[in-house]
Amino acid sequence: MFSGAQISLYPMCDDFVGVILKAISAMDSYRPNFRIETDDISTLIVGPPEQLFPAMRDLFASAAASGVHCVLSATVSRGCPGEPDDPICTPISGSSHELSLAERIGAARAHVDSAKKLGQEVAAQFSLYPLGEGHHMDEIYGCIDFLKTSGVFDRSKNFCTKLRGDAGPVFATLSEAFLRFGAPQGHVALDFTVSANSPSPC
Amino acid sequence: MFSGAQISLYPMCDDFVGVILKAISAMDSYRPNFRIETDDISTLIVGPPEQLFPAMRDLFASAAASGVHCVLSATVSRGCPGEPDDPICTPISGSSHELSLAERIGAARAHVDSAKKLGQEVAAQFSLYPLGEGHHMDEIYGCIDFLKTSGVFDRSKNFCTKLRGDAGPVFATLSEAFLRFGAPQGHVALDFTVSANSPSPC
Repeated sequence: MFSGAQISLYPMCDDFVGVILKAISAMDSYRPNFRIETDDISTLIVGPPEQLFPAMRDLFASAAASGVHCVLSATVSRGCPGEPDDPICTPISGSSHELSLAERIGAARAHVDSAKKLGQEVAAQFSLYPLGEGHHMDEIYGCIDFLKTSGVFDRSKNFCTKLRGDAGPVFATLSEAFLRFGAPQGHVALDFTVSANSPSPC
Repeated sequence: MFSGAQISLYPMCDDFVGVILKAISAMDSYRPNFRIETDDISTLIVGPPEQLFPAMRDLFASAAASGVHCVLSATVSRGCPGEPDDPICTPISGSSHELSLAERIGAARAHVDSAKKLGQEVAAQFSLYPLGEGHHMDEIYGCIDFLKTSGVFDRSKNFCTKLRGDAGPVFATLSEAFLRFGAPQGHVALDFTVSANSPSPC
């Protein structure tokens, strides 16, 4: 298994470099678990699949606390057949993929219910791509069933689903969508965008 | 067939609203062909698949001409089984999917060779997701063969491919990757990020 994310943080202000550099320290506690590489477009983090969204949540919440309109955008992937297995990506808490689709929906909901609130309102949208197997729409529709009862479901849009709420349960919902749907050892990708402090009306 | 994109433009400056509003006029000539809807995260454009990337190119080039560090990020999709067929999405120039993989690679290369240069340097990265059929990695590897001879190939990264060069051939390369690979009537999604005027070293 190989799991990780390409992440980009966009603070919409003249001092975007300062906001990014300050926010990066929020990831310090995750660094021992990750391999991290940065270039001019994105930062790669490779590590345990269930640590990816908590790390991105803390990075984004730190940037959003500046009050500036900020967006974080990421491509998250697990099980890509083009990538080698990597021991750093071993799940810390094990997998729950032996469960039925209905049981996985219930487990995902329980994880979101227990997510700590951060006091930071966000809007997010994402697309889930379970690749390389015949029933990809079954897993997507199962995931949508979970999302609708997550407490942060906003609405379905073309090509993606929109969430809204506190950053804690919103990132927990994204993490559960990524971890629990799609084939257990299959190739699953998830692209998401999360926004805070937008001046646009919802 | 249903085709379209959810697009977001991020100018990294205090006057991000002004840069966005000014750039939007670059899409005026495409408006008669598209259905367009905007919310606080992204703008949906639905229309002919071969018009999607030219419209996004002109929007982004207009914003980048401000000199501000700008990023455009989009989720592009065709053939999603969850979306209705829509006459507005009929390809203007027909499809070339009856061709073999090798012939499609050659045709894609010819289109990129003829792309007009805009004088705007950009870096881009993208992930191609051919969904719901068994040989998705064959189409991805075929697409990578095309990319490596596109003239704007930069390097392979984890989960994505990076391009660099003039905005004209870079957007043409993204468009060809989207149009010519994956099953003809299949569900294909492509997520990409394009960046200009970055202060970061490459």
